[in-house]
Amino acid sequence: MSMRQRHNPQLNGNGELIHLLSTEGLPRDTITHILDTAANFVSVNDREVKKVPLLRGKSVFNLFFENSTRTRTTFEIAAKRLSADVINLDIARSSTAKGETLLDTIANLSAMAADIFVVRHSESGAPYLIAQHVAPHVHVVNAGDGRHAHPTQGLLDMYTIRHYKRDFSNLTVAIVGDVLHSRVARSDIHALTTLGCAEVRVVGPKTLVPADLAAMGVRVFHTLEEGIRDCDVVITLRLQNERMSGALLPSSQEFFKSFGLTPEKLRWAKPDAIVMHPGPINRGVEIDSTVVDGKQSVILPQVTFGIAVRMAVMSIVAGNEA
Amino acid sequence: MSMRQRHNPQLNGNGELIHLLSTEGLPRDTITHILDTAANFVSVNDREVKKVPLLRGKSVFNLFFENSTRTRTTFEIAAKRLSADVINLDIARSSTAKGETLLDTIANLSAMAADIFVVRHSESGAPYLIAQHVAPHVHVVNAGDGRHAHPTQGLLDMYTIRHYKRDFSNLTVAIVGDVLHSRVARSDIHALTTLGCAEVRVVGPKTLVPADLAAMGVRVFHTLEEGIRDCDVVITLRLQNERMSGALLPSSQEFFKSFGLTPEKLRWAKPDAIVMHPGPINRGVEIDSTVVDGKQSVILPQVTFGIAVRMAVMSIVAGNEA
Amino acid sequence: MSMRQRHNPQLNGNGELIHLLSTEGLPRDTITHILDTAANFVSVNDREVKKVPLLRGKSVFNLFFENSTRTRTTFEIAAKRLSADVINLDIARSSTAKGETLLDTIANLSAMAADIFVVRHSESGAPYLIAQHVAPHVHVVNAGDGRHAHPTQGLLDMYTIRHYKRDFSNLTVAIVGDVLHSRVARSDIHALTTLGCAEVRVVGPKTLVPADLAAMGVRVFHTLEEGIRDCDVVITLRLQNERMSGALLPSSQEFFKSFGLTPEKLRWAKPDAIVMHPGPINRGVEIDSTVVDGKQSVILPQVTFGIAVRMAVMSIVAGNEA
Repeated sequence: MSMRQRHNPQLNGNGELIHLLSTEGLPRDTITHILDTAANFVSVNDREVKKVPLLRGKSVFNLFFENSTRTRTTFEIAAKRLSADVINLDIARSSTAKGETLLDTIANLSAMAADIFVVRHSESGAPYLIAQHVAPHVHVVNAGDGRHAHPTQGLLDMYTIRHYKRDFSNLTVAIVGDVLHSRVARSDIHALTTLGCAEVRVVGPKTLVPADLAAMGVRVFHTLEEGIRDCDVVITLRLQNERMSGALLPSSQEFFKSFGLTPEKLRWAKPDAIVMHPGPINRGVEIDSTVVDGKQSVILPQVTFGIAVRMAVMSIVAGNEA
Repeated sequence: MSMRQRHNPQLNGNGELIHLLSTEGLPRDTITHILDTAANFVSVNDREVKKVPLLRGKSVFNLFFENSTRTRTTFEIAAKRLSADVINLDIARSSTAKGETLLDTIANLSAMAADIFVVRHSESGAPYLIAQHVAPHVHVVNAGDGRHAHPTQGLLDMYTIRHYKRDFSNLTVAIVGDVLHSRVARSDIHALTTLGCAEVRVVGPKTLVPADLAAMGVRVFHTLEEGIRDCDVVITLRLQNERMSGALLPSSQEFFKSFGLTPEKLRWAKPDAIVMHPGPINRGVEIDSTVVDGKQSVILPQVTFGIAVRMAVMSIVAGNEA
Repeated sequence: MSMRQRHNPQLNGNGELIHLLSTEGLPRDTITHILDTAANFVSVNDREVKKVPLLRGKSVFNLFFENSTRTRTTFEIAAKRLSADVINLDIARSSTAKGETLLDTIANLSAMAADIFVVRHSESGAPYLIAQHVAPHVHVVNAGDGRHAHPTQGLLDMYTIRHYKRDFSNLTVAIVGDVLHSRVARSDIHALTTLGCAEVRVVGPKTLVPADLAAMGVRVFHTLEEGIRDCDVVITLRLQNERMSGALLPSSQEFFKSFGLTPEKLRWAKPDAIVMHPGPINRGVEIDSTVVDGKQSVILPQVTFGIAVRMAVMSIVAGNEA
């Protein structure tokens, strides 16, 4: 057992995935195993009967401390297609509202013989805290924690890029927009780096690109033209209006003028560049409608692959013990 | 392929039902096929194990943009008895609230490999818009749109009438109350006309009976006595308090005095007339409690048949492709 | 058919359980049968596939007129592990909000071919009212009504005590805290008495211990030291902050000082006494954290046993007809 594995709470002593908390620290083989497994599930989703019995009799709890109907839905579908029983907990209205601590809530749900907790939380690190306290047979999947990580989104982005571009070693990938508030950007950067992506760029106004990014091995650009020039992949990010405290940006129109992806600006990238977005889209803010619906857009395939990737993650962790 | 079928968005080129959007324009054979199929499911609901595997592995999304626990529940039960996976979306709290457009929401859910969308919306026509934009394997069932249509309610009303009265060709059916705001009334009128009902009447105060109804082939009455005289079927409508803007009616007591169905007034109809109501009931407003609970009432059988009719609609559309 | 059985709405003419409304009036054999059945389900919950097909094709409706995510979740898991279809009704937003009566709501849901209603209601007696009006094949399980009863909690407490202490005939059990507002306390007292518990005590300040308790065959204590001395089982109750009207208690700190269970105070009980709590816990109010997490605590096993007890209750009532 190496030091690395001992200190990585996502892996057990054999280096097997037991929780998915972040793409940071995930070995390349683990990521590749998830993507390969997901490829099998993509075909399941095309079948007449879109179900496999891998998680039959298992209980998956969706613990969304922060509301996200879309992400919750993708996990619910993924779990049901694995034949799991799914329990959606409306946490805002539950015992935590009655003063119970997070760890007491988790201990109680674990005592109900939960198998997987899918956790969305506004506080960075909450899924780690939970993973530290669950029994060996219980698994935690991070569905987004604060500004920290959104690893299943990162992995479905990797699936999408691999699907269209095959090999990461020659790729230039640009992540454009509100990087500062984006857990998606962080998860993408870690995964791209681990998979050996030739060049990872972040592109945005100085107010929305955090200072620590150069240390993550990425190149920082403050104009869209430089940032996406000759790129193979352009990942546009949602402008997190609801998270911004106002002073960082003049207006969404101003943002669109400088960084909104239009068909004209997209020509700076390679002619066969693909355009991605984690959704939900603000049409006309971070990306023009013509690009969303255009032939370089792979935004809807991202959603389709996302179900398969979540099926892969849940079926893999459920097969391993701490 | 006839002109009729080309322009009817509910049918494919072979005249098969692919969406249920309205009873308007549904061919008589299609309605009869739905009612015949429902008859089989009524017996399923009487069995010890009330399940059939017809939709196993299919995903049914309940998209209720307008809240209706009762209607949502009937579709959820119907889908689960067909062995489908059901996803309830609390749309008011979801991405649409984050500024995503209706069609982007639908495109995203379609990309998750949805099979059926059950749609309730406060805007008339929303289910049509959705049906125009989904992939050929995806089906839309209208669970009520604005004042326009509530076709599964219309069909379960037809099932109920056929169950008790067998043949439409000799029947007089009166629809009583707030016809103006009632999508149920519209759906009933179209279905009754198509099924060859001898006489369809609408009965209510002038302020609650729309001017275009005579054009739909119905007889309009403004007194209850004339309106239900010698009727075989009396369909009472819910007084849509929450939809009225005040000026149309003096008060619910005033309405009850003139149009509320009491045992005494019911004697104007035929002795074996059945009494229906789509629920939820305002006892003592549109209908007297004694009538609700009386022996001519078939209000609870309507609910029972409603599950079977929704099972029929979903299983039929799921078997056809655009 | 004896008088007793004729007047007990929970039993049919053969003395079989058809509803679970209260532990009051439940025959000792019935309670023992539930606990024995639950013992089998405890082992199901330890299996790889935690499902049995006993309620396949049955519909369980969770009717929570009073919100309780935790209790609703335990019933949802229990029903799903029995392979039932579960429908959660958000009653606050449903037809009752549109002016429909409770009994009309129940009649409608019954007409959808419901098999079991799990009912939580703020009014004492609501589940009885419902049980009086359902069809012979429909079963009602009380999930907590007002201050009256919470019978599945009472039964899971009995299961827990029996698991750790085997025989009730030599036991002293103390129930500590806000007995006045506690339906759990009432359900525990009735079950303990029926099972032949040697001594049942209630312990709390005079303002929180109702005057009628001595008549129930329990001993009343107003100091913790006297109340738990030489006890085998200490059941701590949640301090129902949200139910108290202020005047009954000086403060939660004051309560903790006198009645909060600390490791020091727990020494007054027998050395092998077990400590229970129905949850959710207010750490540092009715019980000290060290006790919650200590080796005498069986609070989490209570939760685990609770799933099995609810599976037992639902599978037993579903097998009987009125």
